[in-house]
Amino acid sequence: MIDFQTDPSRYRHWKLSFDGAIATLSMDVDPAGGLMDGYELKLNSYDLGVDIELADAVQRLRFEHPEVKTVVLRSAQPNVFCAGANIRMLGKASHGHKVNFCKFTNETRLAIEDASANSGQAWMAAVSGTAAGGGYELAVTTDYIMLIDDRRSTVSLPELPLLAVLPGTGGLTRLTDKRRVRRDRADVFCTTEEGVRGKRAEQWRLVDEVVPPSAWEAKVHERALELAARSDRSGTTGIVLTPLRRVFADDAITYSHVDVRLDRAGRAANITLRGPAELPGDLRGIHDTGARFWPLLLARELDDALLHLRLNEPSIGIIVFRSIGDPAQVLAADTLLEQYQDDWLVREIRLLLKRVLKRVDMTARSLITLIEPGSCFAGTLAELVFAADRAVMFAGTLTGDNRGPANLHLSPLNFGAYPMGNALTRLANRFFGEPNSLDAAGRRLGESLDADTAEELGLVTFAYDETDWDDEVRLILEERASFSADALTGLEANLRFAGPETMETRIFGRLTAWQNWIFQRPNAVGETGSLKRYGSGVRPDFNPERV
Amino acid sequence: MIDFQTDPSRYRHWKLSFDGAIATLSMDVDPAGGLMDGYELKLNSYDLGVDIELADAVQRLRFEHPEVKTVVLRSAQPNVFCAGANIRMLGKASHGHKVNFCKFTNETRLAIEDASANSGQAWMAAVSGTAAGGGYELAVTTDYIMLIDDRRSTVSLPELPLLAVLPGTGGLTRLTDKRRVRRDRADVFCTTEEGVRGKRAEQWRLVDEVVPPSAWEAKVHERALELAARSDRSGTTGIVLTPLRRVFADDAITYSHVDVRLDRAGRAANITLRGPAELPGDLRGIHDTGARFWPLLLARELDDALLHLRLNEPSIGIIVFRSIGDPAQVLAADTLLEQYQDDWLVREIRLLLKRVLKRVDMTARSLITLIEPGSCFAGTLAELVFAADRAVMFAGTLTGDNRGPANLHLSPLNFGAYPMGNALTRLANRFFGEPNSLDAAGRRLGESLDADTAEELGLVTFAYDETDWDDEVRLILEERASFSADALTGLEANLRFAGPETMETRIFGRLTAWQNWIFQRPNAVGETGSLKRYGSGVRPDFNPERV
Repeated sequence: MIDFQTDPSRYRHWKLSFDGAIATLSMDVDPAGGLMDGYELKLNSYDLGVDIELADAVQRLRFEHPEVKTVVLRSAQPNVFCAGANIRMLGKASHGHKVNFCKFTNETRLAIEDASANSGQAWMAAVSGTAAGGGYELAVTTDYIMLIDDRRSTVSLPELPLLAVLPGTGGLTRLTDKRRVRRDRADVFCTTEEGVRGKRAEQWRLVDEVVPPSAWEAKVHERALELAARSDRSGTTGIVLTPLRRVFADDAITYSHVDVRLDRAGRAANITLRGPAELPGDLRGIHDTGARFWPLLLARELDDALLHLRLNEPSIGIIVFRSIGDPAQVLAADTLLEQYQDDWLVREIRLLLKRVLKRVDMTARSLITLIEPGSCFAGTLAELVFAADRAVMFAGTLTGDNRGPANLHLSPLNFGAYPMGNALTRLANRFFGEPNSLDAAGRRLGESLDADTAEELGLVTFAYDETDWDDEVRLILEERASFSADALTGLEANLRFAGPETMETRIFGRLTAWQNWIFQRPNAVGETGSLKRYGSGVRPDFNPERV
Repeated sequence: MIDFQTDPSRYRHWKLSFDGAIATLSMDVDPAGGLMDGYELKLNSYDLGVDIELADAVQRLRFEHPEVKTVVLRSAQPNVFCAGANIRMLGKASHGHKVNFCKFTNETRLAIEDASANSGQAWMAAVSGTAAGGGYELAVTTDYIMLIDDRRSTVSLPELPLLAVLPGTGGLTRLTDKRRVRRDRADVFCTTEEGVRGKRAEQWRLVDEVVPPSAWEAKVHERALELAARSDRSGTTGIVLTPLRRVFADDAITYSHVDVRLDRAGRAANITLRGPAELPGDLRGIHDTGARFWPLLLARELDDALLHLRLNEPSIGIIVFRSIGDPAQVLAADTLLEQYQDDWLVREIRLLLKRVLKRVDMTARSLITLIEPGSCFAGTLAELVFAADRAVMFAGTLTGDNRGPANLHLSPLNFGAYPMGNALTRLANRFFGEPNSLDAAGRRLGESLDADTAEELGLVTFAYDETDWDDEVRLILEERASFSADALTGLEANLRFAGPETMETRIFGRLTAWQNWIFQRPNAVGETGSLKRYGSGVRPDFNPERV
């Protein structure tokens, strides 16, 4: 089982150090610390285990270190910044592992960009030694790339010439869209195994600054201070992201607010989210509650559950979301998140919720949300209604149930706090090209919407009463389980995102889909393909046909 | 060999009829008329051969029928509008054929939308009978979909439940982006094999109007007239798209203005474009010259050559563009296209050039443009410099050559006439995020730019003089031929398009890439997969794992 929980005391591959507003995150991969057997993580190459630690560090820097305004990413190993994803690992990994590895590393890199863009925590890369492939792609997620001009240090994307695959962590998209490297230069760069160094790297905008060795450390420090000076980050005392309490059983995982029950025969994971039992009364209370504050703990638990399902339960094709609790309490939590949004911690919590909800959107499983009596899909939790491929709502009361009919509630947070990767809110994405429908929903803020009203407003897919509920829900789930997993993945990857594309959706939509295709092709993964032949001394044997 | 040239006298699958401003294009596929053996084209299902005729009809309606302002698309067969791509054909086809078949059909459907948007020739679909899969996708390319309400006629996208693949002709993207169908309804629609009929089809925006059988013909005619009334189309006498004169040899194709030489050992097609020898002096002359007018004939010949290479020469991985001629004459042709742009025929020629240049962008071969002494990459032809993955320019003179140094020329047409699929001009795409560079190029309109200047302006990738030219060009081509064809396809599909995405690039980038992936997966194409098992009476056996 792959576990996504870690903390700095357990890191094997990264070192964190702090100096006032500046943190330094140094990559120092333990070659013997691979997540699986059969490969050595030489030259600061990485596998999923290395990236799980990186994701943890990114997250903790935001919550535990409000004083940090610049994060300097560098290497603790000589002559190499980072050699990218470990190639022997890629050669041995299943297709599913490769795809999910790339997806997770992409999400981590987007979390770095989110910190820079929205948390006042700028990232910069101090590249000394080789930054190759995923190593350079990691540098490109930062705001500022410095390259030492020592005649040896280079940046490169050698995936195509070396491995017959693409840079899979957003490199191509960030070259054109973020670094704005001219497309023909990007073509040359991506087909040049040895990479680019010195002034040409700067001229081609592959890096921001080239620095002679004599001035290196002083310049790195100077730039880190300059970035810090621009920050709007204001907190002084962080909170500790305490370990999640989880109980694993054969077919279940129990967290504080999240409950996962696997129905293996039905290929479904039933995830029930619990609303808050108690909430702090003010900002001071939120800080005192810290990692136990309901929205924060819920977000971390849901995130962990999603990642667990992605990597450890590939045969679970459906996620069914339910909720239990008092909608008024969920709306009260939203009110706290709205009222104190200018506080650094509340901002971080909202941003984390945004990222976890994006993780939902990017999860290649069918998402079905059931809005039943006793549920609390309100405000933030209602995002799971709008993230779902289908949302089905119980109409009327359930015989013998004294909780009354199911209700749906909107809060201001549904209208801006949680944009999807395409920069639209889930409601705007749902009502793409229908401003009237979006406005109509906006006029019902805070109201208790029953099934008929929710259906009429277009907020749910179907409403069924007690007579039909069990059969209709069962049919949806059985039918879904009978379809091809691959076709569903492709369908959902298209229909979930309407209209505009961003660098982020281009990475997941265009670049990743092409990479996944290449990861299936014999030229990469066949017996005589590049990943199989890598390191054997025998050149791969390519089918020259273009398709 | 698959031939893309045809004309109405040879159609086996379509019938064209004319009634003033209204043309009717009726689908009537000959079951025995498949392009290859082994399948029957029942129920108006189609293969590439059927679509080649459709593409021809779309083109001729624009050039040969300026009087036509509405095209009514319908079926000449009872109970079926169109059953979509033939499934047995898909089951037998190679991966490469499937991919290129989908690409061509997508381009044809975009040509229909281009006619509606830019030629004042609106398309509407009169759906009587089943419009399934590609049949419904074809209807969705039109401006207005009418569905007869006879209790039997339905629209559907049954690909996923029936075949475990995606609708591959833009259907998913057009559902959300063009028809603005809510994503959860789109999900239900795409997983419902039997489709949707009657009022629900209209409520869900799958069609624009549902009409009872008693009113059907009258309403179809009424709507066609309404669409025609909105047209800005002004011509009265069309020109005839005369047959292309082509000579095929083993390793060469010779057209009037386009010359193709295959270097099979080097996996390269050398395409040389000839500039105009003579041009008409005015608009009347353009009309009189008709299909022989240089920009029109060149566009048709280049288009044919590209399609030939795509389908018939899969092992040719590189296209090398060269040109021969007088740049002043090319600029003179551009002046005619600019001066008379409001004329319907000149508008059509510009739009065709736009579409052919997009076909270049979408061709999955490495594109290298060589700007040599004696070449005429000016204005419209210079688009092939900016479309190329790399453009290399000869600096200085060639010993013993009296034509002087190579030059590049920009014309106003480089700054708006030929947008790419992402809605940017090739120059704006090249200088994405660099408005200063774009402006600097704009200030050199009409100037003769030598290699050093062109390189400095960022218009070419590299400039080499006589000493280095041969070796450098040889190295580029040899290196390119040594790389994995699949990885290059993925690289180019990403780097060619910077920044913004449109419905069109979403179809080719996001949707197609996912479809290509699915077309590789065992659930679709394996021995127990859906395409192999289709029609056998045995259900496919799916691997349930999600990746």
